[in-house]
Amino acid sequence: MHRRDFTKLSAFAAAATTLPTWAQNAAPNATGKLRFAAVGLGGISDIFMRAVSQSEKCAITGLVSGHAEEKAPKYMSQFGIPQTSVYNYSTFDGIAGNPNIDAVYIGLPNSMHAEYTIRAAKAGKHVLCEKPMAISSAECRAMVKACKDHNVKLMIAYRVHYDPTWIKIRDMVRSGAIGELQGFQGGFYGPKQQGEWRLDKKLAGGGSLFDLGIYPLNAIRWIAGEEPTSFTAQTATKIPGPRFASVEESIEFTMKFPSNLLASSGSSYGEYGGAYLNICGTQGSLQVQPAFFYEGLKFTGRTVNGPVEESSPGKAPYQFTLEADHFADCVRNNRTPATPGEEGLADQLAMEAIYKAAGHPVA
Amino acid sequence: MHRRDFTKLSAFAAAATTLPTWAQNAAPNATGKLRFAAVGLGGISDIFMRAVSQSEKCAITGLVSGHAEEKAPKYMSQFGIPQTSVYNYSTFDGIAGNPNIDAVYIGLPNSMHAEYTIRAAKAGKHVLCEKPMAISSAECRAMVKACKDHNVKLMIAYRVHYDPTWIKIRDMVRSGAIGELQGFQGGFYGPKQQGEWRLDKKLAGGGSLFDLGIYPLNAIRWIAGEEPTSFTAQTATKIPGPRFASVEESIEFTMKFPSNLLASSGSSYGEYGGAYLNICGTQGSLQVQPAFFYEGLKFTGRTVNGPVEESSPGKAPYQFTLEADHFADCVRNNRTPATPGEEGLADQLAMEAIYKAAGHPVA
Repeated sequence: MHRRDFTKLSAFAAAATTLPTWAQNAAPNATGKLRFAAVGLGGISDIFMRAVSQSEKCAITGLVSGHAEEKAPKYMSQFGIPQTSVYNYSTFDGIAGNPNIDAVYIGLPNSMHAEYTIRAAKAGKHVLCEKPMAISSAECRAMVKACKDHNVKLMIAYRVHYDPTWIKIRDMVRSGAIGELQGFQGGFYGPKQQGEWRLDKKLAGGGSLFDLGIYPLNAIRWIAGEEPTSFTAQTATKIPGPRFASVEESIEFTMKFPSNLLASSGSSYGEYGGAYLNICGTQGSLQVQPAFFYEGLKFTGRTVNGPVEESSPGKAPYQFTLEADHFADCVRNNRTPATPGEEGLADQLAMEAIYKAAGHPVA
Repeated sequence: MHRRDFTKLSAFAAAATTLPTWAQNAAPNATGKLRFAAVGLGGISDIFMRAVSQSEKCAITGLVSGHAEEKAPKYMSQFGIPQTSVYNYSTFDGIAGNPNIDAVYIGLPNSMHAEYTIRAAKAGKHVLCEKPMAISSAECRAMVKACKDHNVKLMIAYRVHYDPTWIKIRDMVRSGAIGELQGFQGGFYGPKQQGEWRLDKKLAGGGSLFDLGIYPLNAIRWIAGEEPTSFTAQTATKIPGPRFASVEESIEFTMKFPSNLLASSGSSYGEYGGAYLNICGTQGSLQVQPAFFYEGLKFTGRTVNGPVEESSPGKAPYQFTLEADHFADCVRNNRTPATPGEEGLADQLAMEAIYKAAGHPVA
């Protein structure tokens, strides 16, 4: 390489480092970090903020909550956030003029994802939105359009896609480690108690499929690399009383893909059970279990090269940190996230088809 | 105990040992063992005969095969069976006059189960028939009727029911070890190669559901203690060519029970994968895996009393030995087997409903 070329390359690299793309939407950022406002200060946002505090690429610099007076002080103190970067739902749109916030993390109840994604986009802020993306495919489409129209990134928080062990599983399957891929069986089962917003259809949009079943559904679609086109499903509620008056307790479904891949999966809010994904091929299989918790990811199986067993060494909330870092990289380098809005839309379309097959249309 | 009582008791015990009930259908049997003719001398009968050779309650004393000249000599020599107790399909009915055969074990292709069960019943021999019981519920009903009409026992060879570890699992679930039972997820996946009779619908009656999927189906029905009434299913064939020209490669299905228990399960002849059953309750769950192989049965889980992990110490073909011994006890004591013809019929009805739901009616 000629010295002149090397100089040009160095200058380019330096520019890429010191002038992140998000500077177009916000004031220059001396830290070089992507600066998030957390929207919604419930359990999932708490985890996300803890994850970001472990990141070298991101920071929490703003807070948005319907109960900001009550919930914000703890985090203001923890992250050194001034009152001028704390918003409630009425003042949220003022975030547009805040030069210390580049992006929002949306950890609200599902029914509020679309509204706050669109308001953030209009405010010129990039959006990392929790799954499920929204409560209908129409909302998902509106979110994709708004982010495109306002030239901000939209990523759905599918933390599984950013875990090196999950990426290894996907790559093994795609590279033929279990022969030709033939099918999947998955599930995610864990109790929710009365009073949680996820049991209120107005806020949640759906039952356990929207919160738990979406994990094996998304992992199956991701690893398959194609979209399911034929569905069957049944829902059931065995526990009587008000707890499951609004959403079903359990759902089991089957999906068929254009290549004739066949999958079954399920989820429940009324029972303990596994969080697992079995991936079956013509010459072997992988059993991922536990598959979808915050830590403890492990897979075992039989491949064309013999038995395998591997666990992720990551400690919670490492998947959230990796996810946030990916989003920061995408914003910085103007790249499309690995799980863009279109990925959330595809899951939403599948979930709508599953509920329709079960005789419980979502909308 | 008075000496006179003891004498009476001893005499009774001696009578029970030396005069088994099956002596009503056959000549007195000096060994006190239930004497089987194996009908069909393929792989499964080979395993059964090995299992019986480890039993103190049963013996192999006859052989029936369409290729008796070729297949019988090995077993005649092994078990000391005279030529007079070897039959082909034409001479089979002559078994009626054979005083050294009390019962038959039917290890034929599925499509022949009904015919040979009914012919054995007419010959006055008790019947232990492999699963699936037959290839249609109409056949199952005819088998039950024939055995009743001719006053012989009919048992279907559901070996799982006779494994102490499986019985423990069932009893744990029924006694509330995982709270209220809410759901199941099961599956059994293993390749079959072109040329095997199980891939020929004329002989097999159905695909992997009839041979593999019946295991989780039966275990679910058994542990649930009720019959499924609502089904969905999809079949798929991904591997092209003649191998799966006759039966489907894979099937996944869901079942709902009157109590609102929900289950999913599946099976495949085209892929490797698990043989497992997840049993989920309101306060815990059990994962049985491997669940349905000849040995290695293991379960782990979480119960109301904490974590559990247990493996069966049994070595193949111990489940077959226990199954044969149970049948011998039932014949000896004139009791109905734990898995009578009605149990096979119930599975057949469920499998017919599953295939119907998948758009592939069996008959």
